[in-house]
Amino acid sequence: MIEEVIEAAGRVRARVPLVHNITNYVTVNDVANAELAIGGSALMADEIEEMRDIVSIANAVNLNMGTLNRRTIKSMHEAGKVANSISTPVVFDPVGAGASTLRNQTAESLLKTIKPTVIRGNISEISFIAGIGASTRGVDAAEQDSENDQVDIAVKVARTHNCVAAITGATDVITDGETIIKIDNGEPLMSKITGTGCMCDGLIGCFIGAVDENDRERQTLVGCAAAILSMGIAGQKGAEMVKARDGKVGTGSLRVAIIDALSTMCNDDYRNYSRIEVI
Amino acid sequence: MIEEVIEAAGRVRARVPLVHNITNYVTVNDVANAELAIGGSALMADEIEEMRDIVSIANAVNLNMGTLNRRTIKSMHEAGKVANSISTPVVFDPVGAGASTLRNQTAESLLKTIKPTVIRGNISEISFIAGIGASTRGVDAAEQDSENDQVDIAVKVARTHNCVAAITGATDVITDGETIIKIDNGEPLMSKITGTGCMCDGLIGCFIGAVDENDRERQTLVGCAAAILSMGIAGQKGAEMVKARDGKVGTGSLRVAIIDALSTMCNDDYRNYSRIEVI
Amino acid sequence: MIEEVIEAAGRVRARVPLVHNITNYVTVNDVANAELAIGGSALMADEIEEMRDIVSIANAVNLNMGTLNRRTIKSMHEAGKVANSISTPVVFDPVGAGASTLRNQTAESLLKTIKPTVIRGNISEISFIAGIGASTRGVDAAEQDSENDQVDIAVKVARTHNCVAAITGATDVITDGETIIKIDNGEPLMSKITGTGCMCDGLIGCFIGAVDENDRERQTLVGCAAAILSMGIAGQKGAEMVKARDGKVGTGSLRVAIIDALSTMCNDDYRNYSRIEVI
Repeated sequence: MIEEVIEAAGRVRARVPLVHNITNYVTVNDVANAELAIGGSALMADEIEEMRDIVSIANAVNLNMGTLNRRTIKSMHEAGKVANSISTPVVFDPVGAGASTLRNQTAESLLKTIKPTVIRGNISEISFIAGIGASTRGVDAAEQDSENDQVDIAVKVARTHNCVAAITGATDVITDGETIIKIDNGEPLMSKITGTGCMCDGLIGCFIGAVDENDRERQTLVGCAAAILSMGIAGQKGAEMVKARDGKVGTGSLRVAIIDALSTMCNDDYRNYSRIEVI
Repeated sequence: MIEEVIEAAGRVRARVPLVHNITNYVTVNDVANAELAIGGSALMADEIEEMRDIVSIANAVNLNMGTLNRRTIKSMHEAGKVANSISTPVVFDPVGAGASTLRNQTAESLLKTIKPTVIRGNISEISFIAGIGASTRGVDAAEQDSENDQVDIAVKVARTHNCVAAITGATDVITDGETIIKIDNGEPLMSKITGTGCMCDGLIGCFIGAVDENDRERQTLVGCAAAILSMGIAGQKGAEMVKARDGKVGTGSLRVAIIDALSTMCNDDYRNYSRIEVI
Repeated sequence: MIEEVIEAAGRVRARVPLVHNITNYVTVNDVANAELAIGGSALMADEIEEMRDIVSIANAVNLNMGTLNRRTIKSMHEAGKVANSISTPVVFDPVGAGASTLRNQTAESLLKTIKPTVIRGNISEISFIAGIGASTRGVDAAEQDSENDQVDIAVKVARTHNCVAAITGATDVITDGETIIKIDNGEPLMSKITGTGCMCDGLIGCFIGAVDENDRERQTLVGCAAAILSMGIAGQKGAEMVKARDGKVGTGSLRVAIIDALSTMCNDDYRNYSRIEVI
């Protein structure tokens, strides 16, 4: 698996996929810089009139409900529909699903209209998507959900929506409904930085925007895992760098170091750090 | 007072209050990361339809006029009204009050509709709120206002709106209309970083979102002071850290170091750095 | 030229020009911090109702199409018209011109309605403005455009719109239609950070917001060059600082170091680093 991950990372650097993001205004800068750091290119646009033009030049589309509003909800629908019509892959992050009726309805409505290539979220959000009554506390995962079986939930979402489903947390689960990948990388302090999930979405966009046409399915699954793995390793390496330099790890420096680690990630980092299991 | 501050900081870490922020798109990322760094949780949402749902799961609401527009002004009214109706504390920052008719009208209209728990701003903004003709130069405090008596203005606002009023600047003044707290912490270079005021609002949200029901009034006053003190100490410690490492203090590194200092703040930092006076 | 640049930088620090920015939500925080770092003051506001009030207190207006939408397009028109009517200088950055019909129409419509003092963009964007069929790939410059003669394109735009035109890239070209300035500073890794162009616009706003009334034309040209030079030197110095400290240059740290370098830039930095040529 690691060698496949390394090949996927090489494709990103070689092809510089352009990711079109409709994401939230809280973490958008980090998303763009993460996409650039891993070797992709970033474009943010959300006015419905230009969705067709913008999606048509993008290699992937990243839809994130973080700070949704009536205007951008329409743009997300339009961007997703255009992307589907020209087979451009779509990442969907149902941020805060379960936290408000608007978010629940938006997630449901988007999933009726468009077919995502990847759905990523925390356990609360993906549980909501799976139709399982999930308790959500804002945009953070609620603890009681952690007891649910993450694998079952992810598999259900993947099969229902015929996509790759990813639940990120202490352990990440990625599945296409058949193969199940578990990742145990990451750094606990990452939960004290806003946007690590959103950056992860952006990285997924880069990886699935750089797949070979003749090996789409496998490379999408591997690419999604590679993105989440990259984020986890970046968190660990970032924390190590800051610890070595400052003696302790402040979250401001950790945030900067994560982008540093993404931008300097090499094949040996994947080989040395990965704690990945394929079931 | 310091021991009360330390208790307040402990309550934030223990209770992880969720702050719902309608703030500006300039500094929003720093606000979220500051809230997480001090031990709280951050949620940003501004679509009016979900205000009731979102406020109902929040422990505090933070309203900031930084980049206000017609859509979010309505959402701020709604969020404030819902918060008031369920006794969830509200921080209000009248950014740029005095700089445009729209801002003046919005501040006035919000204060007619909702009752903030804390009003925080610079001397120009709080002078406007006090109904004193203030001269404002954009979002920075105008120098001629500094001659006004900050304490008088803060007391007037606190009594008129039955809230805690805070004026931040070289010296910070916090009052509930009776007790007056002055803080002399901070670092002059903080004025060269955008968002230190907005981050301060976010910290206030964390502190007042973690008060005990049976001691609301005192803990709100102390919590507001603790938040402003935390920001000042973080500026000083941040500047020290950067100076020691780089030999001089660039504002990019200072911004990162402020979040670092917030995320690693310990009780002895409050004991060693505080320059706080209760009158 | 260097001594003129140093004088221009001194005027910024002495006058603290207030720049009113209608820019994108991706890079807005970096724009504000860059403006503060170079010695200016930053204000972001985009609601049409307050454009007259806000522009009237600003020393320069910065219009950027990065994440344009119907609401802010109207505000950009209004801000530009008000600025023109009171002779406040305007920077215009046609981000992504060529990438969508909406962007093309917005750029054309803005240039019919308002007269910018400076137009800055990459070669694709400025080629579009010059009426030359340019190929654009999102918001990055397309490679095939690089073969066009940058100087000819810049001169054409400057003469057509009676403004200073600036094309930034590996080599920057700045011209008022007569004098041509070329700058060879900068650091290749800057292209892996989002917002260096937008920050450059903000710096231009600071410099042209601090000109002497009796020497407007020359100081606008020099100021525009000084801003772009400052950005290039900040990139080089930033990369050097990070390399010396970390042994390699991650893009997260480079972004922070650029703001550091701007905030600590001294006259000798201009003297020692500048690779500027006047034709």
